[in-house]
Amino acid sequence: MKKLKAGILGATGVVGQQFVKILSNHPYFEVTTVTGSAKSSGKTYGDATDWSATNYLPEIVIDMNVLDTDANAILRNDIDLVFSALPASIAYDLEDELASSGIPVFSNASAHRMRESVPILIPEINPDHLNLVSSQQYDGGFIVTNSNCSTSGLVFGLKPLMEFGIRDAIVTTYQAVSGAGRKGVGSMDILGNVIPFISDEETKIEQETRLILGKHENGRIIPAQFDVNASCARVPVLNGHLESVVVQLEGEFSVNQVIDAYNSFSGEPQALDLPTAPSNPIIVRLEPDRPQPTRDLSLHDGDLGMAVKIGRVRKHKNRLNFFLLVHNAIRGAAGASVLNAEFALAKGVLE
Amino acid sequence: MKKLKAGILGATGVVGQQFVKILSNHPYFEVTTVTGSAKSSGKTYGDATDWSATNYLPEIVIDMNVLDTDANAILRNDIDLVFSALPASIAYDLEDELASSGIPVFSNASAHRMRESVPILIPEINPDHLNLVSSQQYDGGFIVTNSNCSTSGLVFGLKPLMEFGIRDAIVTTYQAVSGAGRKGVGSMDILGNVIPFISDEETKIEQETRLILGKHENGRIIPAQFDVNASCARVPVLNGHLESVVVQLEGEFSVNQVIDAYNSFSGEPQALDLPTAPSNPIIVRLEPDRPQPTRDLSLHDGDLGMAVKIGRVRKHKNRLNFFLLVHNAIRGAAGASVLNAEFALAKGVLE
Amino acid sequence: MKKLKAGILGATGVVGQQFVKILSNHPYFEVTTVTGSAKSSGKTYGDATDWSATNYLPEIVIDMNVLDTDANAILRNDIDLVFSALPASIAYDLEDELASSGIPVFSNASAHRMRESVPILIPEINPDHLNLVSSQQYDGGFIVTNSNCSTSGLVFGLKPLMEFGIRDAIVTTYQAVSGAGRKGVGSMDILGNVIPFISDEETKIEQETRLILGKHENGRIIPAQFDVNASCARVPVLNGHLESVVVQLEGEFSVNQVIDAYNSFSGEPQALDLPTAPSNPIIVRLEPDRPQPTRDLSLHDGDLGMAVKIGRVRKHKNRLNFFLLVHNAIRGAAGASVLNAEFALAKGVLE
Amino acid sequence: MKKLKAGILGATGVVGQQFVKILSNHPYFEVTTVTGSAKSSGKTYGDATDWSATNYLPEIVIDMNVLDTDANAILRNDIDLVFSALPASIAYDLEDELASSGIPVFSNASAHRMRESVPILIPEINPDHLNLVSSQQYDGGFIVTNSNCSTSGLVFGLKPLMEFGIRDAIVTTYQAVSGAGRKGVGSMDILGNVIPFISDEETKIEQETRLILGKHENGRIIPAQFDVNASCARVPVLNGHLESVVVQLEGEFSVNQVIDAYNSFSGEPQALDLPTAPSNPIIVRLEPDRPQPTRDLSLHDGDLGMAVKIGRVRKHKNRLNFFLLVHNAIRGAAGASVLNAEFALAKGVLE
Repeated sequence: MKKLKAGILGATGVVGQQFVKILSNHPYFEVTTVTGSAKSSGKTYGDATDWSATNYLPEIVIDMNVLDTDANAILRNDIDLVFSALPASIAYDLEDELASSGIPVFSNASAHRMRESVPILIPEINPDHLNLVSSQQYDGGFIVTNSNCSTSGLVFGLKPLMEFGIRDAIVTTYQAVSGAGRKGVGSMDILGNVIPFISDEETKIEQETRLILGKHENGRIIPAQFDVNASCARVPVLNGHLESVVVQLEGEFSVNQVIDAYNSFSGEPQALDLPTAPSNPIIVRLEPDRPQPTRDLSLHDGDLGMAVKIGRVRKHKNRLNFFLLVHNAIRGAAGASVLNAEFALAKGVLE
Repeated sequence: MKKLKAGILGATGVVGQQFVKILSNHPYFEVTTVTGSAKSSGKTYGDATDWSATNYLPEIVIDMNVLDTDANAILRNDIDLVFSALPASIAYDLEDELASSGIPVFSNASAHRMRESVPILIPEINPDHLNLVSSQQYDGGFIVTNSNCSTSGLVFGLKPLMEFGIRDAIVTTYQAVSGAGRKGVGSMDILGNVIPFISDEETKIEQETRLILGKHENGRIIPAQFDVNASCARVPVLNGHLESVVVQLEGEFSVNQVIDAYNSFSGEPQALDLPTAPSNPIIVRLEPDRPQPTRDLSLHDGDLGMAVKIGRVRKHKNRLNFFLLVHNAIRGAAGASVLNAEFALAKGVLE
Repeated sequence: MKKLKAGILGATGVVGQQFVKILSNHPYFEVTTVTGSAKSSGKTYGDATDWSATNYLPEIVIDMNVLDTDANAILRNDIDLVFSALPASIAYDLEDELASSGIPVFSNASAHRMRESVPILIPEINPDHLNLVSSQQYDGGFIVTNSNCSTSGLVFGLKPLMEFGIRDAIVTTYQAVSGAGRKGVGSMDILGNVIPFISDEETKIEQETRLILGKHENGRIIPAQFDVNASCARVPVLNGHLESVVVQLEGEFSVNQVIDAYNSFSGEPQALDLPTAPSNPIIVRLEPDRPQPTRDLSLHDGDLGMAVKIGRVRKHKNRLNFFLLVHNAIRGAAGASVLNAEFALAKGVLE
Repeated sequence: MKKLKAGILGATGVVGQQFVKILSNHPYFEVTTVTGSAKSSGKTYGDATDWSATNYLPEIVIDMNVLDTDANAILRNDIDLVFSALPASIAYDLEDELASSGIPVFSNASAHRMRESVPILIPEINPDHLNLVSSQQYDGGFIVTNSNCSTSGLVFGLKPLMEFGIRDAIVTTYQAVSGAGRKGVGSMDILGNVIPFISDEETKIEQETRLILGKHENGRIIPAQFDVNASCARVPVLNGHLESVVVQLEGEFSVNQVIDAYNSFSGEPQALDLPTAPSNPIIVRLEPDRPQPTRDLSLHDGDLGMAVKIGRVRKHKNRLNFFLLVHNAIRGAAGASVLNAEFALAKGVLE
């Protein structure tokens, strides 16, 4: 198969770098275009980027020229799709313009998530939502988003519980600093501290979770009917959002039943054996003190960290209690978008 | 007034050191006896103690001889009361023995908290529980405990809400490492990490909260009738437990009503102007991102940190959401016991 | 004595806040003017400032109007002196303009430090350098600077050694993030990390140390003749620069002689009993593992942290080895400038 | 080739775990025996070990029985060599006993390092020191040690400089907490702090460096003639010792010459293409702010971290200044011992 030519919008930031890392050696896609802000454009990617990932910058992009994040500049390049790591403020118009010009857009930006015809796609959870794109009014192009980073973990904790009937879900987060971008959290603010506030995060979790777990009917999403109540805080952790979840269930349940439901959970990306899909999307830890950000993001050398880890599954009266861990920059951002593109390709939506 | 002679049991540990600090310059009590483990006893307090507080070791105790933590050794000294910072494992018998020998015991240990006749006293919250001591079968002595460190903050967040009717409370904690004692949490385990487990902590919070907020009737405590569901985690913070609280209320309420209830809350320690009582036991922060451990424990130089700080008061449907911060080593431990002794003295229970 | 009216330039930043804190209750000076950047001016100080100090914002400045950092705006106010916490880039011209308009300027900025007629004053170390101001060509005003934050500690470690003859000094630093200002070090860069680079810091230490320890002769400073070689790194510490110092001495020495020299060191601020002067400018710790940033900055509640702490004094062949700790924001910045103004007042240079 | 059967002594600790990780998939050695302390022996390795590495416990050892760390128990197993991660206190006798019983011992313990006939081997640096084992009086067995973790980095920074003539070397360290073992540094001691003391570390660096860089003549090591002066501190970093090095050179040199010497440095492990040898033992970073512990330990997924990284190479008069980074648990411990065994095998010393 000839690889599709991929552009990465906002390629020099934290999420953009993860796109570069994942796509630098991908079987379906090859990076041919990277864009950045005015202060990066015109430089090589190596010069423009303050690389923050553990491993070194992939050789393949070091000398690539950083384009201005401008539709005309991008469209002048020969690209088959784009991945967007743009800030929400500029994502709306630019992604719209590219989709209008026939480009499929896989976006980590929140800008289009609340539009009726734009799926917030997590292919293990709501694969049928991909069909929403057929109702988008773009000529050839389309927009598929992935969810907010905390939401991307929460829905894995909730989806397998839907068979028990969810009455409401209360989630409290311990979020890593990388979720705020490279300069988002100053060290004087977070060293030895917890900041009980992340702008807009609680609303995003509350809205997106119900949409992703909602039903696709007649070209629209009917949000899941249970309430989600989120409280978010930043902790001095580099990568990995931990979430404490308390779910009131309607039906009877035992801890073992829930663990079984998690362990047996699998989705279309697993059935299709997509390159970025983890073999088990949910991994249950039975130790008393897991999962933990520094120990459970990656299972082995080279593991991207796409699986969501769940632990401390407990029953408190009719409530289920557990902690989950999601790699915010991978399953909650760049990895999510790449998996969406792989899935769209497998389903023939992307060609 | 002649000062009462106080012993500090387990004086070399984290909480013991806070007792030393608070009592080194106290108007009612003077430290005359300090005890430690076998490896400390026989040394001076200065030599035996790896002082971990910010300020320097008070001169008054530097040369004090550390006694073995043994009832006979303690009783040989002329003491009017003891403060106990003992580990639970040895606290039960020793505190019992001292009380039996006529010594009032103000204990931070959990050992006796679940006994029917032993109050978990927080004098702003449940001052009448002090009366339980009259049903204790000790000859002259008695035991008064303070609560677990997380509980000591939570009850301030809940007490003023009881007028609205509490249906249930869900609390999720971000707990400082000092709560585990000097060697409790290894640095390899917590640097850049969150550990979603603290042994026994959730059960303590769930039980103690309902007892402290319960009614004293006919010499017994009827626990408060609402459910408390706790999830606890350790974060890389030195001092200060932050807690996210979600409370389902029965009655109508507005955020402003709740803030007013917090701001106007005051108790007997304030009315009695006790030395360790904060002028306002609850301080509401209206900024969007407070309270925070590194910024809100102490209000001014020399402030012990006895006030509980509450922020981000929000309404989500019929649930109240907020964050609170409590100084685990002060309001949650040594300061709490000292305030209890001051209160007992003011009420004539301690003489 | 009527208090002198003080302006604080750049009052909303990390160092500016320390000026506000120190001066909010000062016997000689009262804050009457605070200035900030364009985005702060016009607001009240309380609204414009993201207060980062542990204690709360002093009431006295909360409602003070923040002026634009502009000479005309400042001069319109009735001020007797200014303290400058400006960034070097704008400090040069503005401080020059104010001095030219007759205002004494006590500056933490580096802008004027390398001028021949401007003292880098540390009154315990080089009190006679204050006389340089008489050669400044300002009409009534003058400029006195304090040193770079790391230098301010190092010179206390070196000055008492000069009697032994210093051949060279090699210093390696562990610097706190507050030294870089509020947003200077991003959390993604420093959590669990060390950054072996601080822009211009090594040069500042190497130059300023030799000037401060130099001789004032005929209206000029002859730098000290020994070499200083600095290597600087940032560590995940909030406040307090630790420095490892290796000094090659010319004369014979013993560790005890050096400790005696440190312990007996005292200067004019001590003799004059200036308000901000510590009673002992150098405190030697004899424990094997001190000084430490979280434990040794402050000796007791309310201690500003003006004393430099020295520990691990060792002899390695003819080299003296030791560690020192300096409070970068106090002795290395705001406290240093305030002490300079107190000293200038005591000497009649400031009236 | 049939793999040699390897025992790991002290396999449950931090360094022991790294041995397990490296050897779980090694071309020359297979782990057949793991030993632990009395509280681990009799359990499976999975149950006995609080695994602290990022990746998960290799399957191959999960069910392996942990033996008591006792010579008889070990010798009852069929083993060809042992790797020792024992604490120094018990290493001396046990390693001696095993070597006497014909077992080659590759030890990370310091116990035997100062013996005349025991090499502190780093095969890129002093391959000929391996010959010392021929003078050991064991029947069939022998002992080869690797150096202290800080030393293992320093010698790479110094060896290529020897052609310029080293007069003396002053090293100041920023050491990770993992170097102290799993419970070595408590979190209350290091969060937001620096501890300027590591027991015995400075002496080890000063002695071992001169031995490793010394000459093997007539069956003995003549230590290198220059002085080494070390100052050590612990920083809140998980893995990776950073070291600031100041070297006085006798000959002329330029920064470029030194960088060339580092870049072109290679040794026998590279020539022999040993499995654990990095392709370049020294990697020079030219960026202004590198190397850094969180960014430079590993170059790519699966990279063990055996290369030493050097940066900020500067000239200050006749002194060379630079920073180096060494992975304390790999190049400074387990990886070093494994490379030593590979080298001994390649040289026919181990068969």
